[in-house]
Amino acid sequence: MEVVILAAGQGKRMRSILPKVLQPIAGKPMLAHVIDTARTLQAERICVVYGHGGEVVRERLDAPDLAWARQEPQLGTGHAVQQALPHLADGDMALVLYGDVPLIGVPTLRRLSEAAGASRLALLTVELENPTGYGRILRDAAGRVTRIVEEKDATADERKVREVNTGILVAPVERLRNWLGRIGNDNAQGEYYLTDIIGLAVGEGVEVVTVQPDAASETLGVNSKPQLAELERIHQGNIARRLMEEGVTLIDPARIDVRGELICGRDVEIDINCVFEGRVELADGVRIGPNCVLRDARIGAGGRVTPFSFIDGTTMETDCLVGPYARTRPGTRLGKGVHIGNFVEIKNSTIADQSKANHLAYIGDADVGRKVNIGAGTITCNYDGVNKHRTVIEDDVFIGSDTQLVAPVRVGRGATLGAGTTLTKDAPAEQLTVSRARQQSIAGWKKPEKTPR
Amino acid sequence: MEVVILAAGQGKRMRSILPKVLQPIAGKPMLAHVIDTARTLQAERICVVYGHGGEVVRERLDAPDLAWARQEPQLGTGHAVQQALPHLADGDMALVLYGDVPLIGVPTLRRLSEAAGASRLALLTVELENPTGYGRILRDAAGRVTRIVEEKDATADERKVREVNTGILVAPVERLRNWLGRIGNDNAQGEYYLTDIIGLAVGEGVEVVTVQPDAASETLGVNSKPQLAELERIHQGNIARRLMEEGVTLIDPARIDVRGELICGRDVEIDINCVFEGRVELADGVRIGPNCVLRDARIGAGGRVTPFSFIDGTTMETDCLVGPYARTRPGTRLGKGVHIGNFVEIKNSTIADQSKANHLAYIGDADVGRKVNIGAGTITCNYDGVNKHRTVIEDDVFIGSDTQLVAPVRVGRGATLGAGTTLTKDAPAEQLTVSRARQQSIAGWKKPEKTPR
Amino acid sequence: MEVVILAAGQGKRMRSILPKVLQPIAGKPMLAHVIDTARTLQAERICVVYGHGGEVVRERLDAPDLAWARQEPQLGTGHAVQQALPHLADGDMALVLYGDVPLIGVPTLRRLSEAAGASRLALLTVELENPTGYGRILRDAAGRVTRIVEEKDATADERKVREVNTGILVAPVERLRNWLGRIGNDNAQGEYYLTDIIGLAVGEGVEVVTVQPDAASETLGVNSKPQLAELERIHQGNIARRLMEEGVTLIDPARIDVRGELICGRDVEIDINCVFEGRVELADGVRIGPNCVLRDARIGAGGRVTPFSFIDGTTMETDCLVGPYARTRPGTRLGKGVHIGNFVEIKNSTIADQSKANHLAYIGDADVGRKVNIGAGTITCNYDGVNKHRTVIEDDVFIGSDTQLVAPVRVGRGATLGAGTTLTKDAPAEQLTVSRARQQSIAGWKKPEKTPR
Repeated sequence: MEVVILAAGQGKRMRSILPKVLQPIAGKPMLAHVIDTARTLQAERICVVYGHGGEVVRERLDAPDLAWARQEPQLGTGHAVQQALPHLADGDMALVLYGDVPLIGVPTLRRLSEAAGASRLALLTVELENPTGYGRILRDAAGRVTRIVEEKDATADERKVREVNTGILVAPVERLRNWLGRIGNDNAQGEYYLTDIIGLAVGEGVEVVTVQPDAASETLGVNSKPQLAELERIHQGNIARRLMEEGVTLIDPARIDVRGELICGRDVEIDINCVFEGRVELADGVRIGPNCVLRDARIGAGGRVTPFSFIDGTTMETDCLVGPYARTRPGTRLGKGVHIGNFVEIKNSTIADQSKANHLAYIGDADVGRKVNIGAGTITCNYDGVNKHRTVIEDDVFIGSDTQLVAPVRVGRGATLGAGTTLTKDAPAEQLTVSRARQQSIAGWKKPEKTPR
Repeated sequence: MEVVILAAGQGKRMRSILPKVLQPIAGKPMLAHVIDTARTLQAERICVVYGHGGEVVRERLDAPDLAWARQEPQLGTGHAVQQALPHLADGDMALVLYGDVPLIGVPTLRRLSEAAGASRLALLTVELENPTGYGRILRDAAGRVTRIVEEKDATADERKVREVNTGILVAPVERLRNWLGRIGNDNAQGEYYLTDIIGLAVGEGVEVVTVQPDAASETLGVNSKPQLAELERIHQGNIARRLMEEGVTLIDPARIDVRGELICGRDVEIDINCVFEGRVELADGVRIGPNCVLRDARIGAGGRVTPFSFIDGTTMETDCLVGPYARTRPGTRLGKGVHIGNFVEIKNSTIADQSKANHLAYIGDADVGRKVNIGAGTITCNYDGVNKHRTVIEDDVFIGSDTQLVAPVRVGRGATLGAGTTLTKDAPAEQLTVSRARQQSIAGWKKPEKTPR
Repeated sequence: MEVVILAAGQGKRMRSILPKVLQPIAGKPMLAHVIDTARTLQAERICVVYGHGGEVVRERLDAPDLAWARQEPQLGTGHAVQQALPHLADGDMALVLYGDVPLIGVPTLRRLSEAAGASRLALLTVELENPTGYGRILRDAAGRVTRIVEEKDATADERKVREVNTGILVAPVERLRNWLGRIGNDNAQGEYYLTDIIGLAVGEGVEVVTVQPDAASETLGVNSKPQLAELERIHQGNIARRLMEEGVTLIDPARIDVRGELICGRDVEIDINCVFEGRVELADGVRIGPNCVLRDARIGAGGRVTPFSFIDGTTMETDCLVGPYARTRPGTRLGKGVHIGNFVEIKNSTIADQSKANHLAYIGDADVGRKVNIGAGTITCNYDGVNKHRTVIEDDVFIGSDTQLVAPVRVGRGATLGAGTTLTKDAPAEQLTVSRARQQSIAGWKKPEKTPR
């Protein structure tokens, strides 16, 4: 099968400088959703028809398996498919999709393709409660499709038909080539309509079959930001339902956003209002608290992420306890049973098993051993204004509060750093290291007085 | 046109010490919404009728363009309007609104006013799916309004009427004065009903016309906290829809709260669960991450606010990157390309172009130059217990981690402060300044041992 | 009355290692909801029927007032109730409930019990829009229940009946004992159905009465995670409605989660997306900002908790101002008018009236007096690696920024600690105490240069 994706529409109603098909659903351009669907179908060839100003679309989404056809001027959907014809091989079947109909599902398209077989024209139609505005599917007494009538050309009786055209269809390439050469533009818009091929097919005795989608929402198109938001919510609702059916406990399925891939083990619980981006894996028994953001993360079994945490580019082994207000950045690797607490930032660092940094700290470019206790207010001074340096903290170290480790620097195994230390040279193992001025009190000292303003 | 706003209801069902009309929608008292609507209509005069305990209403919302009429005792809506009559000028038209019907829209009222012209009585009515409890609009065979019948007085046939009275109307002041002097209180409640003037108008041959609102929700009243919440959501939904139609991308239109004015440029994206208070301007291409609160802020083009940030009383020039967990307070002014990172608080400070404070810092009452790097844990000690002092940091300064700047103090251009410095005197330009005790290690030091409890 | 709770179902569709009846609604196992409902009804005896793998259920929820009956093998609902019979006393009435029908309400059950009286069989039935799949209630011409017919055995006419069986019933124990001994398992599943007792009751001339629940949702059962989430939202919606009817202002009733007991005074306002766990009391006029989590907390009158705060195990006297990003942990006691600001963590500490810790601090195991000002970056070093020690800060103390208090240590009344002090010994009252190295600048110092990588 070959897939043609029409993606030339400008989308003025989006009121955006971004071409319509690049507008995102779940953080990914609508057109990329459709392309990925075509890939899942293992299309022989995927040809994207782009239009005026569409170079940015091609630049953004180009890939070796895509062919691109430019449509200019834009003279209708029939004309658009025609631009793709040079890329299509006679003998194959062609599936026509739309870059602004992003939720179309693979099972639906498989059924459509099967219905088309090797020679039929298969049309995806949908029954709507309110079909106003859509082309109606007209059938003869035997139930065979005879033609599609547009709203404005329909009689009162025809308008009562609730089965409408979605525009998505499968047809033999050779036939398509022939029909598209024959359709006219004798209509109010002066455009060549793809749907006109139905009449030609019927006229030639080509069997026209119809298939309905698994869900009507698969066929919704996007022309405005309200519609974009509507599809976003439908898409997120679908993801939430799938997760729950796989056994994930969602405290509120209406308050989870998955923008990428979320892979969950058994007995995972996700509290309200969490956002997942990129590829996130949550192993068995992981619990994510309310209001967390996770991006490109892998949380080992039994891990807990508590409220207001932002976990990014991070792997955690089993039984980590992270948050609340923990912020881990790319390159963070936590061993087993590591605790990261509130207002702690970790970046590009490894923290080995059972170590803890529970309060107000910045750990960047560091290698931290096992069973290390990092006190509140500890800061690795990894940046000297131009270069970044690493800090090494060996096993069993106790870092006192409010300590600065001026990298490059190493703290030997079992060392203790006193509170408030500025560590500029390596600290020997097992010893207490401090840099501390003598405490003195000033008797008779006068408190500042209020200055008149 | 003159506007009378009835605002004397006590609202016992609100179970609050706050008078009902001061209960907020989008953070603003319901009555203030109605007053602002009257102002938008450019009313000649706005007269608010308040009641027992309503002094607090007057105190809270008084303004030079408002007249106040006290209604006591409260003998019904007709009686309430009567209290306003001394403020109204014969020859004008009077529009009657309600302090607890806050969503009534200007376009609807303009149509109502036009329908009234200079001499008619124009009544706002609405068709309800379920009209139970409302006064029904009765019409003659020619479709002319004959009277309003209350639920309890209606026949079975009359109850089937789905067009109901909203209470909102426009009438000539002179007529109103006359009618209100003639209505009685011969009913179960012993009250004078404004709606009784309809019958008098019809009797006198005054034309009674009706207008329907753009949306039925405009006419909803609030008598309880569940209704208050319902209107809050309708109002927020309306705001979200308007923003999207203007081109703003809302990831979830059901999870945005705007309490004030939100002005957006092109290609603005707002992620889930954000709250906007006061006046907020987001220029072209601004992106607001999930779970942010913005109040009285202006974000320049290309700015990004990342998750969990709270931006208050702040202006940012173009291309700032702020958050996650950034907290800026009133008087914060950020130049171009400034970066403010996690767990950083900024207050009453100016930070010039391309400067950065990326981690765990408190910057208060400071003037920070360009290309300054403020290390993790930096604190401006701006308060001595009684007075606040300013800190000045000139261009190209590098502030080492965990540094305290004891204001008033100045750091000269290009200076470097070593990590852990307590800066009590000015730091000269281009030099390294530190206050650091010698690092020493204590061999043979014994770790603390567990004390038995 | 005696209560039998059927809780032996495995719930394979939950796809969890946790038995179905332990799956939580509002953070509490479904079965615990049902047990608590039975307790509210002041049941004479509560007998829980558990099944294979159900020991964990018993371990988790056992209590002195519960009897446990093991059902193994599991041969249907009739068989399940039979296992409970040894615990029930003849002469009493028995109410049958289900561990996976958690929202059943006390008022509904009271009405059901009253309908049963001392000798009738009272059946809880519900009218459904779409009764597909449920057993239908069949009645004779006089409206008396004759029997229950299962979906699959029902005629087309019988399937039109919209009144269905919920399985919840009250019956005399003696009769129940007799009937359960007589029902068979001659059906497709080979199971003993509790509903078969209806036919026996009718046959014996025992009056069968029906009661409908206050809300149909009370009778919903949970077999899958989507259903669990559905009931969670219904339950939370019920709580939100009740709070609003009591006068609480909820900015969005669809975005509040109460997992425990939330007790509110007058004029409490709760902003969007808050979570309440355990027992939380909010006194008059308390306002909770957006995105807060409160657990086991008591907030005194006039208190304000601002965005992104996490309040746990904390009591506050009147007029406290806490947040944003405040994190208080168990054992926190705040006096009147205390201010706790951003990125501040408090744990197991008492902070007396009018004291403030407004920025970036960790206060653990401390006793703080009145009118104390705790500067930004202050840290109590309460942990030496093995033991925890207390810090005492007396009244009127001013703690400079970035100070470490190495516990055990005491700061005398009215003392001032200079910024950056590491306090290892007690600070005398009224004096200034510092530990500070001399500030020095290094002329001719060369900045680091970029190292080639």
